[in-house]
Amino acid sequence: MFENKFPTFDKNPDKIDSRRLNIGSDSPYNLKESEGICEVVCYTSNHDLYLEDLTLEKINNLINVWRDRYLALGKKEFVKYILIFENKGKEMGVTLSHPHGQIYAFPYIPPVVLEELRSSKNFYVKNKKCLHCKIIEEEFRNSSRIVASNKDFVAFIPFYARWPYEVHIYCLRHLGSLCELNDIEITSLSRIIKELINRYNKLFNFRMPYVMLIHQNPTDNKDYGYYHLHFEFYPPYRTKNKLKYLAGCELGAGTFINDTLPEEKAAELKSLILE
Amino acid sequence: MFENKFPTFDKNPDKIDSRRLNIGSDSPYNLKESEGICEVVCYTSNHDLYLEDLTLEKINNLINVWRDRYLALGKKEFVKYILIFENKGKEMGVTLSHPHGQIYAFPYIPPVVLEELRSSKNFYVKNKKCLHCKIIEEEFRNSSRIVASNKDFVAFIPFYARWPYEVHIYCLRHLGSLCELNDIEITSLSRIIKELINRYNKLFNFRMPYVMLIHQNPTDNKDYGYYHLHFEFYPPYRTKNKLKYLAGCELGAGTFINDTLPEEKAAELKSLILE
Repeated sequence: MFENKFPTFDKNPDKIDSRRLNIGSDSPYNLKESEGICEVVCYTSNHDLYLEDLTLEKINNLINVWRDRYLALGKKEFVKYILIFENKGKEMGVTLSHPHGQIYAFPYIPPVVLEELRSSKNFYVKNKKCLHCKIIEEEFRNSSRIVASNKDFVAFIPFYARWPYEVHIYCLRHLGSLCELNDIEITSLSRIIKELINRYNKLFNFRMPYVMLIHQNPTDNKDYGYYHLHFEFYPPYRTKNKLKYLAGCELGAGTFINDTLPEEKAAELKSLILE
Repeated sequence: MFENKFPTFDKNPDKIDSRRLNIGSDSPYNLKESEGICEVVCYTSNHDLYLEDLTLEKINNLINVWRDRYLALGKKEFVKYILIFENKGKEMGVTLSHPHGQIYAFPYIPPVVLEELRSSKNFYVKNKKCLHCKIIEEEFRNSSRIVASNKDFVAFIPFYARWPYEVHIYCLRHLGSLCELNDIEITSLSRIIKELINRYNKLFNFRMPYVMLIHQNPTDNKDYGYYHLHFEFYPPYRTKNKLKYLAGCELGAGTFINDTLPEEKAAELKSLILE
């Protein structure tokens, strides 16, 4: 684990200087110093080992590193949100080939997360129930979108998937962050992550590129009892040879077009026989 | 102009059928029929002529087609928003090579537009002034981010650009949709669009791919006096050989990372000598 050499956020950011920014003192722009911390987590010292190649024990260690950094960074006063993620593959713009993930400590709760929190809170207020627990219940109803599961975790293509092979992994137990997992659950989590990525790799017989990210409670000391830890995977492929592109409708309207059925894509992933 | 053969929205969409969708009748998912209209607008009958290759007169005609479709589609009861856009280049996933744009008639106001409207309204309520008029004023203050301008329109890289060469085109006069433009303004608009795209093409000596889109008033018959017509261009290149990729931070957090200064990129575009 080390700090990113070209960080998006900075521990000691420049002060805001309207003159240097070429704006007036009464400009309509909302400004905030880019205070934050960006870390890189190498998965192993081996240049060729990807997350899915690691033993369960090594993945458990990685999860423990994520927990430790979530706790340590989250304790800092200015840190409101920790985003743990991995960009994998040249299709996602990755330039450093050694397998690694990243951790961003944000000075604010980012907008995609805010929107998820808002929906979760609205549902909770209305139904006195966790939205995500309800989704898990719904997905187990006929299981057609489930890709993998074990006694503690489930992986499914959400009904509302934006990418053909988008998969979310949920802990069956209601909890808000990695820190609440017990040792048995950590091993179950390692197992399902490893299984999912191996299924991805088997699907087209190449290492599937993806964005993986962990959504968990913000670290601003407020109560997020209505929220629920989960992982999201976005692989950019629609077929073995075709990428999904984000264009006018996604970028200009925020509406994702997905012309596949989650049930069909889940069946493709689920039916693969792993060694 | 013709209807899209593989439309995202459908004039006669399937009715919602929980059983066929593999969800319970009390599922937590928000559902809406995908009622809408998707049209394709070919710019000319010539297979090799791009928007920027057209005469001003032909671009004026195109703008008039956009106006006509905005009016005609917007009159339909179920249509709440018209998105006019163009995806250009294989880097944006374009498969049909004949130069064309698209028009989507949405049955709802899409989220990116909603957020823009919300900001505009908040600013208006607070300052009794159009946010976008204030931005134009700010950009003319020292002009460092302006790429092109004429007596009716200005094109600049916004202070808040998410892409290195993102450019927004604004009408200097406060108005909400293409329908409010007079004939002289239409020619000024044609001129600045043509100039901007020619600058893009000259920058790296290839036809710059981009997403172009028009943000204008929704068509739900409410009052949007606080909003302001503008065009947005997102070219995906960071340098001649490097694309910008959307990955964990953009897709999982909604926070765009842009490591370039708008003033520098605007100067690059502005300094090019066009024939």
